[in-house]
Amino acid sequence: MTYGHNFESWRAASPDWDAYTRAPFLAALADGTLPQATFLHYLAQDYLFLGHFSRAWGLAIAKSGDPSEMRACATMVHALLHDEMALHIGICAQAGLSRADLLATAETPATLGYTRYVMDAGYTGGFLDLLAALAPCVLGYGEIGARLVQGTTDTPYRAWIETYGGADYQALCHETGALIDGAIASRLGESPRSVPYWQDLTNRFATATQLEAQFWPALR
Amino acid sequence: MTYGHNFESWRAASPDWDAYTRAPFLAALADGTLPQATFLHYLAQDYLFLGHFSRAWGLAIAKSGDPSEMRACATMVHALLHDEMALHIGICAQAGLSRADLLATAETPATLGYTRYVMDAGYTGGFLDLLAALAPCVLGYGEIGARLVQGTTDTPYRAWIETYGGADYQALCHETGALIDGAIASRLGESPRSVPYWQDLTNRFATATQLEAQFWPALR
Amino acid sequence: MTYGHNFESWRAASPDWDAYTRAPFLAALADGTLPQATFLHYLAQDYLFLGHFSRAWGLAIAKSGDPSEMRACATMVHALLHDEMALHIGICAQAGLSRADLLATAETPATLGYTRYVMDAGYTGGFLDLLAALAPCVLGYGEIGARLVQGTTDTPYRAWIETYGGADYQALCHETGALIDGAIASRLGESPRSVPYWQDLTNRFATATQLEAQFWPALR
Amino acid sequence: MTYGHNFESWRAASPDWDAYTRAPFLAALADGTLPQATFLHYLAQDYLFLGHFSRAWGLAIAKSGDPSEMRACATMVHALLHDEMALHIGICAQAGLSRADLLATAETPATLGYTRYVMDAGYTGGFLDLLAALAPCVLGYGEIGARLVQGTTDTPYRAWIETYGGADYQALCHETGALIDGAIASRLGESPRSVPYWQDLTNRFATATQLEAQFWPALR
Repeated sequence: MTYGHNFESWRAASPDWDAYTRAPFLAALADGTLPQATFLHYLAQDYLFLGHFSRAWGLAIAKSGDPSEMRACATMVHALLHDEMALHIGICAQAGLSRADLLATAETPATLGYTRYVMDAGYTGGFLDLLAALAPCVLGYGEIGARLVQGTTDTPYRAWIETYGGADYQALCHETGALIDGAIASRLGESPRSVPYWQDLTNRFATATQLEAQFWPALR
Repeated sequence: MTYGHNFESWRAASPDWDAYTRAPFLAALADGTLPQATFLHYLAQDYLFLGHFSRAWGLAIAKSGDPSEMRACATMVHALLHDEMALHIGICAQAGLSRADLLATAETPATLGYTRYVMDAGYTGGFLDLLAALAPCVLGYGEIGARLVQGTTDTPYRAWIETYGGADYQALCHETGALIDGAIASRLGESPRSVPYWQDLTNRFATATQLEAQFWPALR
Repeated sequence: MTYGHNFESWRAASPDWDAYTRAPFLAALADGTLPQATFLHYLAQDYLFLGHFSRAWGLAIAKSGDPSEMRACATMVHALLHDEMALHIGICAQAGLSRADLLATAETPATLGYTRYVMDAGYTGGFLDLLAALAPCVLGYGEIGARLVQGTTDTPYRAWIETYGGADYQALCHETGALIDGAIASRLGESPRSVPYWQDLTNRFATATQLEAQFWPALR
Repeated sequence: MTYGHNFESWRAASPDWDAYTRAPFLAALADGTLPQATFLHYLAQDYLFLGHFSRAWGLAIAKSGDPSEMRACATMVHALLHDEMALHIGICAQAGLSRADLLATAETPATLGYTRYVMDAGYTGGFLDLLAALAPCVLGYGEIGARLVQGTTDTPYRAWIETYGGADYQALCHETGALIDGAIASRLGESPRSVPYWQDLTNRFATATQLEAQFWPALR
């Protein structure tokens, strides 16, 4: 499983990658033992998260260097606003949680911290800082989905797993990986690891990964 | 012709609205006397303009207050990146100007000044400042298109006129007007003219209108 | 004790104001029972906080509406970078914590969340949003200092108390309160509470207050 | 005359550097033939420019990577708000132009374009983009001042020349050059010219230089 060589490097340098992508929450989601209340709590926070995440990809359009980068970011905004957020609304509605409920949910400190960290990375830094802060969410969910979709059959959370493990989302991940690789090549060249700024990007990716790990609800 | 009552107010308070929407350039475009070289010069600058304009609508996503505002802004980004910029590429290609030519065109001071004014309005101000700076372009072109499409038949620039006078673009203008009215109502209330900030927004609209008027190439 | 009528209104509408300004941490600081390790932990996090807070006041310069607002914000930056951060370095040095130690301290989730919330408020909103997010820290510390400096005599944390209760910091609070009142009057007019946007500002102040309350280290 | 090796490289790659630093306006200023009305027109626009320039250095505080970069940027804000803008107010007052007159002056397209270009460079890019856009003004005025202050004796514009040629402003230029060299070394390393992003920075410097050249009023 790979979404590009820069992602590979960043992931390898993120101590919390496994804590994020192999969290107990995910094991319980895959084997069906996750309490529905915990899942709905997660979904409601993730809905708030996706709102800010859409804002962040909108900002990425503003920070793009050329029309092709803009189009890739606009595709992400579209997928988030139309597909991912709709998925959440649909699953929540089935469980009796309305869209108004979702919007009225109070943000937890974990949601607030993570989302504003990404926004500030984008506003304060440049396009690459923003991509490095966005990458763990997009590509980590891709990695999780691709792993869980294989072999998981009997869980009430199959729709969630199939969304992220499915062909559409996987294609989005490959496009995002290509966007990152292209953006780094055009700005930092063919040996980005020799540029000190690379370390800043690696740190951003690692911090966002840590914030992802803290985003899963604890299981009791 | 109207695209909402806030637009009406701002337009009425903009001394350069007629200089913008009834420029000699437009009369020549409508009667077919506009030299092709002048039109292509305009198109090439407008292509650069649209790139920054797409960035500005991306920023508007980041500054939106709720998912419905985000979706309206994302719709604009999509229309710009896919429809309007494609129109320019198509018309220019017919006239022998490639997409690489377009991107390599040097920005004139008018293009640089206008586009960066809009970006700074958005970054420095809030969502409403950005909308007020974006409105003259979106809605002025709608007004121009709606007027010229009626009665104009015999001009080589008919495709341009039909784009902005056509149903799709007019619908976009009505959505933009509704976006503005909704955004102002939810932030400034039902009597926005009594709030001092209203004057700042009016000034932004007037300045962007002036920059539009200066954007048309001079006719010799 | 008051630093202006807008502050008064915002404070009255913030459920966590007492949890913030009358936290157990502060009682222990005033009576001297606060463990030094807890105080140093707080100081190290607050040093990181002040770095971001200085960035936020720098951004406020960029978002100011006129030279007098700019000067008020620049005064805050100067006080933060030269006085407050120096105070932390001095106290920490006495306790054996070097400046390099301070900069190398890992951010807690509370520090990360609060600081990025303020930055995003400023970048995404306008000048008033930024002021509303900055106000609880500046003015709450003023209120705390003014209360504790009276009657507190015998505590190892007297220097901290005298900094915030002292004339210089109190003057800064009055200037900040006046900055807020002036900025609101010039943008929202004489009846700002009737403008819906006022509620957004109140919410920002309340959220930042909650983040302040969560910023104090827990006492065991 | 040098203010650091990165400045030297950028200057060498800017086709309009001489058009900027050796403009007819400056020769007339040095030999005293510049009409006072032209000088006052320039000063009034430059006063508006300095307001935005102060905003831009405030933004640079927000984008700084560490406290020492923040302090260098805060020093610039202080010099601009207190010294340079005061110089303008003083000279204009002597010539009968009040501070209210200055603030009420309408921005020319050249002032609007240049200032918003710098702001957008800072907001859209990172700290280095902002420095590259700010450098031509700061360091070009230093170079101009240092050259004109030698040998110029008999001109009514001696106060202006001595401001930029004087020890205080020259020290500020050396600090700015050192800020740039340090910021580039810590982000792009010891061979920044081999990083593609270097070219973006060079282009920003060249564009800002061109905008400086266009900022001088034409002589008739």
